[in-house]
Amino acid sequence: MASVQIDGHLLETQLSSAELCRGKLLQVRSDHVSLPGGGQSTREYVVHPGAVMVVPLLMDELGQVRVVLERQFRYPLQRVMIEFPAGKLDPGEACFDCARRELAEETGYHAQYWAHAGVLHPSIAYSTEVIDIWFARALTAGPPHLDQGELLDIFTASTDELLHWSHTGVITDGKTLTAALWLQNVLSGAWKLDWVEV
Amino acid sequence: MASVQIDGHLLETQLSSAELCRGKLLQVRSDHVSLPGGGQSTREYVVHPGAVMVVPLLMDELGQVRVVLERQFRYPLQRVMIEFPAGKLDPGEACFDCARRELAEETGYHAQYWAHAGVLHPSIAYSTEVIDIWFARALTAGPPHLDQGELLDIFTASTDELLHWSHTGVITDGKTLTAALWLQNVLSGAWKLDWVEV
Repeated sequence: MASVQIDGHLLETQLSSAELCRGKLLQVRSDHVSLPGGGQSTREYVVHPGAVMVVPLLMDELGQVRVVLERQFRYPLQRVMIEFPAGKLDPGEACFDCARRELAEETGYHAQYWAHAGVLHPSIAYSTEVIDIWFARALTAGPPHLDQGELLDIFTASTDELLHWSHTGVITDGKTLTAALWLQNVLSGAWKLDWVEV
Repeated sequence: MASVQIDGHLLETQLSSAELCRGKLLQVRSDHVSLPGGGQSTREYVVHPGAVMVVPLLMDELGQVRVVLERQFRYPLQRVMIEFPAGKLDPGEACFDCARRELAEETGYHAQYWAHAGVLHPSIAYSTEVIDIWFARALTAGPPHLDQGELLDIFTASTDELLHWSHTGVITDGKTLTAALWLQNVLSGAWKLDWVEV
């Protein structure tokens, strides 16, 4: 209610909504809206089912935290990107089930402890996508089993490397940079995680 | 060259490319690709002109840094989001010119010192978008002059508030969370910025 009072003058109202296109992967809608200051406009956006990202933590022989990362070719950018394991929700799938599934499928790891960190919205101007951020630890290795047409390399890095790469432009994937913010603050003790054993 | 050697087994090759749809705002393409492991697949993605984000720094009367933020209704999410000033490049516009223009248009501020921090890719699975991250300081206030159909509130916050909101889910915009990572490391001295007077 407080939020509505503060934000009421910013709200846009849908007048009509139509599908602009539907591909094999992407669904795009185009809505006609009335603007709060008067007048009308068009809003176009990708309809997304939601996704998860997992930050998998390992411990090296010196007790230092390492993270499990992926190298994956991302076609829209025509380059290989370093990123945390992630994937879209299947229809009807619960967010946590998706996190466990994606970690196992892409890396082969199963985790004993899980913590939900937060969420991020990667493209607020033109996508409904929300990404749930999970941390996973006490990992047991197993064989990955990737989706058809999915190919990626798995490797590990120290948290110093992750932050150095975030600084120097080696890592530019937005969700992974948000994970770096979480990791830095979790490791410093500034942000607490609520771990649950599964 | 080293990168090609490492990543060659991950690369996908375009076989054909077609426009899936073109709205007033979004252009979506659908490409047929050959996969590195054999086989073929479809890649669909938004073609984006690129964007900038500005992290505008103010100093309060106690010498503490404050940041200039916006509250803006984001239609795809049907909610008001807290975010740093940002906007798309105009055709042919240089990245830095866009940063200065967006800061002035959305907040009214002009900055004496600028620093380019890095870049982020918000949606690597289905968009070509890249966001250049700029820091701005020594601000002079002026009147904002928003685009037609653009309505937003400008306010300031301490860096502690920014980080607290990033932790507690008040801020979930991906680019703004990446800016929080940069700000935290710049203020701690871990990451240096190269300021230029304009």
